[in-house]
Amino acid sequence: MRDLFQEELDAINADISQMADFVMKAISRATESLLFADRDIAESVIESDVILNDLAATLDERCIILTSKQQPAAMQLRKILGSMRIASSMERMGDLAVHVAKSARLRYPARSIPDELVETFRTLGHLAEDITNQLKSLINNPDVNSATSIQKADDKIDAIHRELFRIVLDPKWSHGVEAAVDVTLLSRYYERFADHAVSIARRISHVITGEAYIDTHI
Amino acid sequence: MRDLFQEELDAINADISQMADFVMKAISRATESLLFADRDIAESVIESDVILNDLAATLDERCIILTSKQQPAAMQLRKILGSMRIASSMERMGDLAVHVAKSARLRYPARSIPDELVETFRTLGHLAEDITNQLKSLINNPDVNSATSIQKADDKIDAIHRELFRIVLDPKWSHGVEAAVDVTLLSRYYERFADHAVSIARRISHVITGEAYIDTHI
Repeated sequence: MRDLFQEELDAINADISQMADFVMKAISRATESLLFADRDIAESVIESDVILNDLAATLDERCIILTSKQQPAAMQLRKILGSMRIASSMERMGDLAVHVAKSARLRYPARSIPDELVETFRTLGHLAEDITNQLKSLINNPDVNSATSIQKADDKIDAIHRELFRIVLDPKWSHGVEAAVDVTLLSRYYERFADHAVSIARRISHVITGEAYIDTHI
Repeated sequence: MRDLFQEELDAINADISQMADFVMKAISRATESLLFADRDIAESVIESDVILNDLAATLDERCIILTSKQQPAAMQLRKILGSMRIASSMERMGDLAVHVAKSARLRYPARSIPDELVETFRTLGHLAEDITNQLKSLINNPDVNSATSIQKADDKIDAIHRELFRIVLDPKWSHGVEAAVDVTLLSRYYERFADHAVSIARRISHVITGEAYIDTHI
């Protein structure tokens, strides 16, 4: 009975890992649509999001059936609930990739960001992919060090987010209000994306270390 | 045994109702801090958020203990999980109230929003309070009509959100980039606040009607 339970937990983990792959592709392509003002890529990110939502819904259902059939003890229950929350955060990361793609689509055929910020958003895109990649490793092979390294990547994204604020608010900013608003919102989408990754990483470390999980990241 | 289960579910509901009270006060005071550039009120909203986080953590723990002790059937399990998700959305609504308060604090002693938008943000504040109030009624007395009326209040907030975009992007906007960025982010906080309320209302209707819950709101 318990082996079956472990098998089910492993299957749930595999689903989450698949969601991470999906999210990584979504943020990578959303960034691409933004950097190259590519409407087709933007559309494909927006349309594919339904797949991620379906994956999350299926995972939820699987967790509910597992819990009601196997009647797990508190510790196992915490793992199942943790998985459901991770799936829910991944779904939200997908939504944020969609927001980036929608911004790209909105300004097409122009680019939502000024030329001088292309490299900055390319870096944000790479960091977001990198964080998702590390998240996937952490899911497949939980260890506390990966959680720390995800936190570091998040710190870098936060620093860029603050720097972008400084840039758009600088008197030398010459691209007007619309570009400032676009840049601010886009920067916030990447920042929130990374926040969700950190929150997932903390949840996983919590399961590894058995420490209480408190999400102080707002 | 089952009566005890129902008693526990009622207690969980009472906790959620208490969270709704807290969130209502938080968004009301955050709006006040914004409208009157009142740093003390802003600080108190920011500091009190830890209470809401504690309420959510306690509710989670209560749900886990209930599930592991009582071994509920799938239907009851869905209710418990629904409650945990509602608590998690409420916690996020509190975070968004904190974001509003932080924006007020950041620009103190100035006001983050131009004079001409004070009435608009007052309306957003009222709608956000109203939506939370309706959410509380729905929690205490689930019926599908309240869920519809929450959706309508959300539509109004979305309309104001779009209108604010139009205003800051209008060539006649005379308050510069910083105010435009502040207004955009603040407007988004209210919009996300309302989205969470709609998501909670849908979750509750889902439990009432037994229909599948799909969160299409991104």
